[in-house]
Formats: sequence, C-alpha cells, structure tokens
Amino acid sequence: MPSTPGTTKAPKKNAFYAQSGGVTAVINASACGVIEAAREHSDKIGHVYAGRNGIIGALLEDLINTSEESPRAIAALRHTPSGAFGSCRYKLKSFEENKAEYERLIDVFKAHDIGYFFYNGGGDSADTCLKVSQLSEQMGYPIQAIHIPKTVDNDLPYTDNCPGFGSVAKYVAVSTKEASLDIASMCESSTKVFILEVMGRHAGWIAAAGALAAEEAGDPPHIILFPEIPFSQEEFLVRVEEAVKEHGYCVVVASEGAQYADGTLISGSITKDAFGHQQLGGVAPTLATLVKQKLGYKYHWALADYLQRSARHIASATDVEQAYAVGLAAVEYALAGKSSVMVTIERNQGETYSWSLGEAPLEHVANQEKMMPRSYITEDGYGVTQEGLDYLSPLIQGEDYPPYNNGIPQYVRLAKVPVEKKLNTPFEV
Amino acid sequence: MPSTPGTTKAPKKNAFYAQSGGVTAVINASACGVIEAAREHSDKIGHVYAGRNGIIGALLEDLINTSEESPRAIAALRHTPSGAFGSCRYKLKSFEENKAEYERLIDVFKAHDIGYFFYNGGGDSADTCLKVSQLSEQMGYPIQAIHIPKTVDNDLPYTDNCPGFGSVAKYVAVSTKEASLDIASMCESSTKVFILEVMGRHAGWIAAAGALAAEEAGDPPHIILFPEIPFSQEEFLVRVEEAVKEHGYCVVVASEGAQYADGTLISGSITKDAFGHQQLGGVAPTLATLVKQKLGYKYHWALADYLQRSARHIASATDVEQAYAVGLAAVEYALAGKSSVMVTIERNQGETYSWSLGEAPLEHVANQEKMMPRSYITEDGYGVTQEGLDYLSPLIQGEDYPPYNNGIPQYVRLAKVPVEKKLNTPFEV
Repeated sequence: MPSTPGTTKAPKKNAFYAQSGGVTAVINASACGVIEAAREHSDKIGHVYAGRNGIIGALLEDLINTSEESPRAIAALRHTPSGAFGSCRYKLKSFEENKAEYERLIDVFKAHDIGYFFYNGGGDSADTCLKVSQLSEQMGYPIQAIHIPKTVDNDLPYTDNCPGFGSVAKYVAVSTKEASLDIASMCESSTKVFILEVMGRHAGWIAAAGALAAEEAGDPPHIILFPEIPFSQEEFLVRVEEAVKEHGYCVVVASEGAQYADGTLISGSITKDAFGHQQLGGVAPTLATLVKQKLGYKYHWALADYLQRSARHIASATDVEQAYAVGLAAVEYALAGKSSVMVTIERNQGETYSWSLGEAPLEHVANQEKMMPRSYITEDGYGVTQEGLDYLSPLIQGEDYPPYNNGIPQYVRLAKVPVEKKLNTPFEV
Repeated sequence: MPSTPGTTKAPKKNAFYAQSGGVTAVINASACGVIEAAREHSDKIGHVYAGRNGIIGALLEDLINTSEESPRAIAALRHTPSGAFGSCRYKLKSFEENKAEYERLIDVFKAHDIGYFFYNGGGDSADTCLKVSQLSEQMGYPIQAIHIPKTVDNDLPYTDNCPGFGSVAKYVAVSTKEASLDIASMCESSTKVFILEVMGRHAGWIAAAGALAAEEAGDPPHIILFPEIPFSQEEFLVRVEEAVKEHGYCVVVASEGAQYADGTLISGSITKDAFGHQQLGGVAPTLATLVKQKLGYKYHWALADYLQRSARHIASATDVEQAYAVGLAAVEYALAGKSSVMVTIERNQGETYSWSLGEAPLEHVANQEKMMPRSYITEDGYGVTQEGLDYLSPLIQGEDYPPYNNGIPQYVRLAKVPVEKKLNTPFEV
C-alpha cells in the first residue's frame, strides 16, 4: 500500500513495562497510566510489552502483549491492587559481576524493537533502570529508560512521596482508629493494651501514619515505635503504664523495623530475602509478651502484613491519582526525549495541598533511602509532630472505592497473552 | 397541671440497654435501633439508660442517660464500630453462687424505674438476660428482658445468623482476596505461602468466609483450617506443596481455634479470659514455621485480630441493616408484652435471599454454641461446599461506607452523661 502523502512518521518503537519489588494497592494504577498514555500515542509507540514477573520476564524473554487487553480491562487496572503482570524480588548484579544479564536485556529489547523502558519500583529498580540506560548507550542501542516510583515504604529520595504509601498510610490510620475504639470499649474488664505491627524496614513512615487516627489530644495511638528511635524497654513500659492509668488502655503502633540502640531488632528475626533485606515480623508479639510479663495487662495484637499494602478497598484517592499520573507522565517524558530519570511528585507551595510532577536524574535516586526527618517525630520519640502530620495528612485524602459484585471487589484478571519469542538463546536467572 | 382529658396513659417505664462481650463493627447499629425506637415510643418508654461498660454499669449503678445525646449522635451510632457505651467480659455467676449480683441488678432497675432490659450480646449474655427475667418474676418486680443477638462468631442458635458476623465475614473475604493477589504477584521469586489467621474459638464460621474470596475453581484460598476438623500436619503439608506446585503459591485461612484430634490447639496458647475462654493467637506463625522447616517455602502471615471485628469501613450493608433491625424489634417486642426472648433473624424461603425477624425463648438459647454444619465443609475438610457458600454469601452483600472527614471515618463520640445515682449502697464487682 502506498504511504499516505504528507505524513512523515518517525519509526514506531515498542515499549517495555515491568513491576518490581513488593507490590502495592496502586502500582497497577501506574500500569494503567503507562498503557493508556501509550495507546493515546499509538502514532509513536507500538505495543506495550509487560515483563511477566517483572525484570525476570525480560531476561527470560517472557513478555505479555498488553495490546491484547481490552480498554476496559486496562481501565480496571486502576482499581486493582497488587502487580497484575507479576512482580519480582530480583536484583541485577553490578556490571562487573554479571554484565551478561544487562546484555541479555538489551538483546531482548532489540529483538522486540523496544525503545522505551518503563520500570515501576523502588530504589533497587531505580538502580537497574539507570544501568540499562547506561548500557544501552555503551552498546549503541538507544533505550529511553524512565523510572516510575512505587513503594509503600515512602523511602525514595527526590520525590515528596511515593505512590503506594498514601494507601498503606490510610489503611494504618483507619485500622488504628477502629481497633482503638474496640479496645476502648473492652478495657474496663478485659484487654488493656493493643499493639499493631506495621511495615517499614528502616524508615518509620508507615508507623507514623498511625498518628493520623487521633483527632484530639490524648487520642490513640499513645505510643508509636519508629526504626529511627532506639527502643528502650524501661521507657516503653513506663509509657504503657501511664497510658493505661490515664486512659484505661494503651494503643501502640510499632514498625517492624523498631530496634534497640545497638541495632538489634525487637523482633529478633534474621531471615533475609533475595535483596538481602531482612524478613521481619514479630515485634508485636514480643512487645505483648513483655507487657504481660512486666505489667500483667491483658493484651491483643495484630500483624497486618500483606493486608496493609494490598488493601485497595480503602485506598487513598490522592494516592490512586498520583500513581496513575506518574504512569502517564513516564510515557510523556519518554516521548519528550527524556531518559535516565525518575518521575517525581512535588508538593506545591500554599496553604491548601496541591501537587505537580517533576523529575530527578536516576544517578541521584538509585540505592538511597529517605528516612523520616527527625522534626516529624516528637521530642520524646513516641509520636508525630504537627509538621509530620501536615506532611502525612494530604496523602490519605479521599476514598476511591473499587466496584463490587456479590459483596466482593471486582478486580480485573488480565488475559496476559504472551509475545512470541524471537531469540533462540535460552537464559537462566 | 390537669391531665389531658380522654387519654389514660400506662405509667411510663425507663429502659436499660447494655453491650456485652467482644464488640463488633455493627453492635452500635443495634444500640441505634433500640434508642431510636424508644424515642419513637416516648409515650410508653421514658429514658433509655445505657450501662457504662455493659452489665458492670448496672451493678455499679453507673448509667448513661442516652436522652442527653442528640438525634444526630444517635443516628451516627449506625456507622460507628465497637461498643459506644463500653462493653465488658463479665459473666454473672449462677444464682446459687452469687444471688447478690442479681438482686443488685433488680435494686438498680427499681431505683431507676426501669421496666425494660435490653441486653446486646452473645450466648453468655443471653443466659444473664434469662436470669434477670426469672429473678424479676421471683422478686415481684416485673422486667421485660429482651436479648439482642450480637457475635462475630455466628454461634448463637435459633437465629439464621448473628449481627456482627456478616461484617467480619466481608472483611475476611475481601482481605483474603487482596492478599491473594499480592502473593500471586510475588510468588515467582519470593513468597510462596500466605497464612491469614482469623477469629473463631470453637466454630469455623469466620474462617469459612475466606472461601467467598474465590470466584473460579482453583482460586485462593487453597486451604481453610476449621476448629471442627482435626488438624493433621502431614496432610496439611501435602496440600500446601500441591497448591504451590499447581498455582505457584498457596493461601491458607486458619481459624484461631484450629486444633489436633486430641483437642490440642495448633497455637498452643492457654491464657484464659474472664469467661474462662482461652485467649488464642499464634496459629499462623506456628503453621508458617512448619511450612518453612518442612517445605522450605518463603512465607508471610497476618493476624487480623481486632482489625477484623472493628472494620466498620468495610461493613456488610446487610449486616448493618440486620443489626439495626434487631435493635428496633427488641423495643417493639417489649412493647408488645414479650419477655425472655431473643430477637432472631430468619431466612425466608425462595431463590433470592430475603430475611425477616422472629424470636426464640431464652431458655433455649442460653449457653449453646452453633457449630458449622458438616455439610458446609467439603469432604476433605479444607474448603466450603456450595451449600455453605449459599449460606454465607448473602450475609456480606452490599457496602455501607461511613462518612469520612480529612481522610478518616467520622465515628461518633457520645457525651455519655451519667444518670444521678439513687442508691447509697456501694457494690463491688
């Protein structure tokens, strides 16, 4: 067929998208943003191929053709938690240690005519994204690599906050409020201490969100334990006893990473995951046993674990919007010729919260963790200051309920049609 | 003032209302029903006095005058979880052991001109309600005692279901669904087994609700552990391995009361509460350790504890309606001259779920537990049959979201104005 006169098109490239690390309630909203934006720009971007189980899918040439998904299915990603294409805990080694993995990525991208690399993850994947970008230059196969931030831990630098955090923060705030009402009802003759253990290996952002449950002075939670503040058994027990005497009960929100001054975790666990991160869990029962032994109070404790980061049913509308927006922006940035950057969320100046999008160079972002500023934690180390609350509160605003059918949220199941393999070389991860 | 001619009124009596035992997401909806119905019948019922911290409030003559609460505050009880007036774990002893307590109740009721006793609780409080009714007859001070069912455990007899259960069932179904999507995303390179521990000391109703998360055959949860089915380590491990091999991961919903054939709890805990019930917790970590040791799979586990029963943010609309309706009906029954009965929920015949209210004599209800029928559990003991699903599913239908402000549900704080004491005799509980 003759080409249409008057239109000179740049050659269309395909895009690769992958999800990395622990999933969140809104990472699929970012996927939705990427795919919908790419479809809007079908004159410039061919297919969006998603890695099955994250970067592992790229290494194994196990790609999913998102073009096979209906617009309705892609739209439904916005309200579906977890990683719809599969995620992974798989950190590429350094160039020196395993250059073959990076070369394999470029080979797969070449084979499938991929010119855009959208990587949706935390600090480790920002590092991978940077290396892919660097190697593509070295190997003379241009790839525009854009990092889309995602982590419930809220610990990425150069962005005001991370998509995924607002929803886990809302879950923790709402759960703390509800459980606190429960124990307040029961404390006269039964449970006096309730401990909620939440995620956060090194930074206390998630634990801090528990403070949003309080509306008036003296409201629970009475004690928050941050990884940033060294734990003292004696001081903790004094505070628990004080709260029980003053309010009749004590509510504690404890970060899984809470630790003693010497770095020993309260949980005492030392299991490690594939990234070398310690697998935690067990702060709440440890503290509960301590309270029982030393103070004799009846206790209850909860460990929310995956429930907190997958709780799309109580997602923050602000978080959903931002997760979608960073996905959209990644595509726009790539089409504007940008590469080796992370999309960032910037908090605008002004009395009322508003935000806009920005960017940060990946070489600054990779492998850094943003801790809670000390000024967000009260001087005594057990609460959140007004400055901290002012930071946190806007991130949990608004409810964005998924549709329900038969009493259960309707989360989408994708067709996940595989892309035909083009390489004959097997690869092992 | 002269009396209005032509109207001969029966003497108005006050009503007593108290919440008992573990609270739920909807027990305050029943309180709302009682108080709103009493206000509708202000020609027949004077004040509704609520016991502060349940029956303890009656024994201590510590009553809250609900007439001091605004209509708006009372209406907001419908969407506020936990026990707004305080509940208690306090079981009255038998007549023989402590007749003084029952006599004290009658004395307090007499002193405050109370003619109606509305007791909102489970099996233990049905027993108390019955005894109050019997003693009032013996002592010649008439009290109409109506029991309003409440228990997340769903183990009261003579009622199709118990208010409070539908909402915890919805929480467990939604949480199981969301956490399952999370692990499905991660299983390729990380967590392979997820265990959610839920409430249910003796009956597996709450654990069974996890089955509502599945939409298609093979969907998680893959294993449900009921207290009714003896636990076998070997069989459990075989099933976990099968699920991981078939689906890539395995989701387990385990009842806190799950036990071996000899009655030993998996959790091994032996702490007891004031009712002599064992305080449980620890099935999930025990099973997780077993899985790790024997199969080597990476695991995660969650223990929802109070979060599940206080989760008003994801309450079942059906449950809220029923909780409100049994409160209303209790007042109507009393005004119709009934006593010593529990309001029951009856499932109507027909293809589509509908329900109506009935009643059951308290002497039949008290101190009985309704177990899951064996026909609701699959033959292998690890799942829920279609018959069971048909029973459970209608109870989680509909969402009934509380109002939000500033990202947090707006739950009401009552004024809780105390009623002036009239007795000079102190009483100790």
